[in-house]
Amino acid sequence: MCAKQKESVAVGPISGFPEWTPAERILEQRMLDTIRASFERYGFSPIETSSVERNDVLTAKGGSETERQIYRLTSLHPQSAADARDYSLHFDLTVPLARYVAQRYGDLVFPFRRYQIQKVWRGERPQQGRFREFTQCDIDIVGDGQLSLMADAEIPAVISEVFTRLDIGNFCIRISNRKILTGYLEYLGFDGRETADILREADKIERQGTDPVREYLSKGGADQSKIDGILDLVQAEGSSQELLENLKARTGVGERYEQGVSELSTVVEFASSFGIPESNLRVDLGIIRGLDYYTGTIFETRLTDHPQLGSICSGGRYDDLASYFVGKTLPGVGISIGFSRLFSQLMRAEIMQAGPATVASVLVTTPDESLYRKAIEIAGQLRSNDIAAEIFFEKARLARQLRYASRKGFRVAVIPLEEDLAAGNVRFRDMDSGVERSVPIAALSGEIGKLTQSSTG
Amino acid sequence: MCAKQKESVAVGPISGFPEWTPAERILEQRMLDTIRASFERYGFSPIETSSVERNDVLTAKGGSETERQIYRLTSLHPQSAADARDYSLHFDLTVPLARYVAQRYGDLVFPFRRYQIQKVWRGERPQQGRFREFTQCDIDIVGDGQLSLMADAEIPAVISEVFTRLDIGNFCIRISNRKILTGYLEYLGFDGRETADILREADKIERQGTDPVREYLSKGGADQSKIDGILDLVQAEGSSQELLENLKARTGVGERYEQGVSELSTVVEFASSFGIPESNLRVDLGIIRGLDYYTGTIFETRLTDHPQLGSICSGGRYDDLASYFVGKTLPGVGISIGFSRLFSQLMRAEIMQAGPATVASVLVTTPDESLYRKAIEIAGQLRSNDIAAEIFFEKARLARQLRYASRKGFRVAVIPLEEDLAAGNVRFRDMDSGVERSVPIAALSGEIGKLTQSSTG
Repeated sequence: MCAKQKESVAVGPISGFPEWTPAERILEQRMLDTIRASFERYGFSPIETSSVERNDVLTAKGGSETERQIYRLTSLHPQSAADARDYSLHFDLTVPLARYVAQRYGDLVFPFRRYQIQKVWRGERPQQGRFREFTQCDIDIVGDGQLSLMADAEIPAVISEVFTRLDIGNFCIRISNRKILTGYLEYLGFDGRETADILREADKIERQGTDPVREYLSKGGADQSKIDGILDLVQAEGSSQELLENLKARTGVGERYEQGVSELSTVVEFASSFGIPESNLRVDLGIIRGLDYYTGTIFETRLTDHPQLGSICSGGRYDDLASYFVGKTLPGVGISIGFSRLFSQLMRAEIMQAGPATVASVLVTTPDESLYRKAIEIAGQLRSNDIAAEIFFEKARLARQLRYASRKGFRVAVIPLEEDLAAGNVRFRDMDSGVERSVPIAALSGEIGKLTQSSTG
Repeated sequence: MCAKQKESVAVGPISGFPEWTPAERILEQRMLDTIRASFERYGFSPIETSSVERNDVLTAKGGSETERQIYRLTSLHPQSAADARDYSLHFDLTVPLARYVAQRYGDLVFPFRRYQIQKVWRGERPQQGRFREFTQCDIDIVGDGQLSLMADAEIPAVISEVFTRLDIGNFCIRISNRKILTGYLEYLGFDGRETADILREADKIERQGTDPVREYLSKGGADQSKIDGILDLVQAEGSSQELLENLKARTGVGERYEQGVSELSTVVEFASSFGIPESNLRVDLGIIRGLDYYTGTIFETRLTDHPQLGSICSGGRYDDLASYFVGKTLPGVGISIGFSRLFSQLMRAEIMQAGPATVASVLVTTPDESLYRKAIEIAGQLRSNDIAAEIFFEKARLARQLRYASRKGFRVAVIPLEEDLAAGNVRFRDMDSGVERSVPIAALSGEIGKLTQSSTG
């Protein structure tokens, strides 16, 4: 009715807002399903929070770089109902978790174990592997007043299960305890602010070497022995057992240090009870992470053969999840997988490759219109046996239909032909080998089941 | 370190942005999984589009009420990287589909069958069952240049599968064809604009009765026989076969009308080949829907026993998906489930009820710290048999641990006791009946499997 001009609006990707092809999305979804199944196997239950939070909730903690990246909602049209200047999109899943737990404190059962797989938004300057919209996969165990250290040992078990099942190569969870370094710096006479500064510098060692931290310490008047002591600790290498023994050997460092070493020992010891192979969990005092958030155990995870990907999963123990929102002490431990970044990097590095552009394994072709009913019947039989099937209904020669099957990546094409059907049979084609066979219609699901199982197994 | 005041930020729900308890979210997710599995069984493949679109994309069609409800993104802080005044959150999944298909036209294989389960945002004035953030579940089949009418017959088959598997009671898919009414109105001498107005009035009959449409028609000068003719058509009752025969009996109405009747007959006939029970699909000329979008088949779905819920799934055939974005004719047919609205109404009407607050069926208790290792081993055995299990690690008497199991809704509590373990056995408690049994450790997964299967079956 309206004579609008065609193609008036140009379409193209929006920088920082990733989108995948159908084949990529199928792979992404399969990976997310794997992560979710692992979380659930360990008894983490799903929650979902709204995409928006009130601005005062998002900025309650204050002062972070992330605050500058918050997307506020407003209305496209002034004076419309959509006006909501007080709300913004969440930039992580931790603030929403804190608000959710505070809001429902009386109804939740603690320890509260939740996973959350959701989009978050950050108005960062887009660059390779940095997105403005991305999916995070978080788990947390939150206690009411207290939380067993065993929770810290369970988290790496979940991470290990996730990455083993994702099957994206060897990985290593690096583990430390924040109290060890802060206790040691306290022992050396640094105050809280200096400690924070030193940790910040130490966090850059991997990228920048030890010079900046040395320089920082000298400028602050630290003598060479102190500097060496700190660097010895942060850069120590060896097996987890060796490192733990060295840590224990330093006596008289003080209570905080000793508590950190004791916690780390316990966590590592029990983590191995969970069946984490030794090669997948390594003590490393060099990991620093979230300076003002984590207070005990900290984790980082890397792909052993692809260190350039950086940490793909990190987290730790915190003393207090939600003190800004509720007058309760809620200690917790959790980790977060920056999924979109991981996924895009796995694709770019060709560690994973997208497969077919269809979730169905079977295309039922229709060599002739007169066969529609038979095609529907056959597809129905397959579907009732949990074999996903598409029917090709467009008028096209069989060769074109098979080309369609091949382009979309179907494993099998069913080809109903009068001559076969008259004998109670139906023909199917293995799209990989090109081999065609005719089998009794009742046996079709079983035959295709064998074929699709062998090709995914 | 910072001495922030506690409880400085009040937390509460944000109107129009629904959030569920863990138990509700578990149910919601199970329902979404069911929908997704049904879509996939019919060979619809997932895509996901970014949450934002360029403003000119969102408003390309122009003039709709929805435009006033668009949430634009801006930055919370001026001069930050987040500034993105050109982008807004999408308000449906149809415009994003059109843009996605236009953008990737050259790479997609047609007919393109996709499902999309995503959040959308509309700044509506919040009211019961109307949300500002909600999940939609859409499927569409999009052809390149043409699309078989069989696609129209397949869509109700998918809907029927979805709602049968969701198991939320009897439902009926009402089906019509836009061409029948418009053809008939053309035959009566109404022009395009009048036709649109009449359809708009006819759409209100269910809520307001026939008076407004009668009045509208009289005012426009239509004589009584025309008015009766229209109302006869729109309000006709009977079986699909009867209605179709009556429609066919009106001869000489014109080409558009006849095409509509013929399409509707074919779609209904083949829909029954897909195995849709007759009670689940009914011809109803009274459904109108999306005046300026659908051009042929239209669908609406209602729960038979809960008509107050209104249409829970609707859609239809359109001539041209993406003419604003690409110089190609892309006809399609699709439907959309307004999931969040449906879910909240099912909960409110107590048609569905949330179950346990945990996805795990088993809680492994730890009556004593010395049993941590054994508990971890037992949970590991259960998990490797795909039985989700949580371990209770907090220091608490067994009675409190069992109370925790009961509050969260675990089906089974495993109670490792020295006396049983010494004999190679372990005790477990059926939380429903309170009955406890001791079985060989190796047999535990099997025994629990039997119990959990019988309670869900």
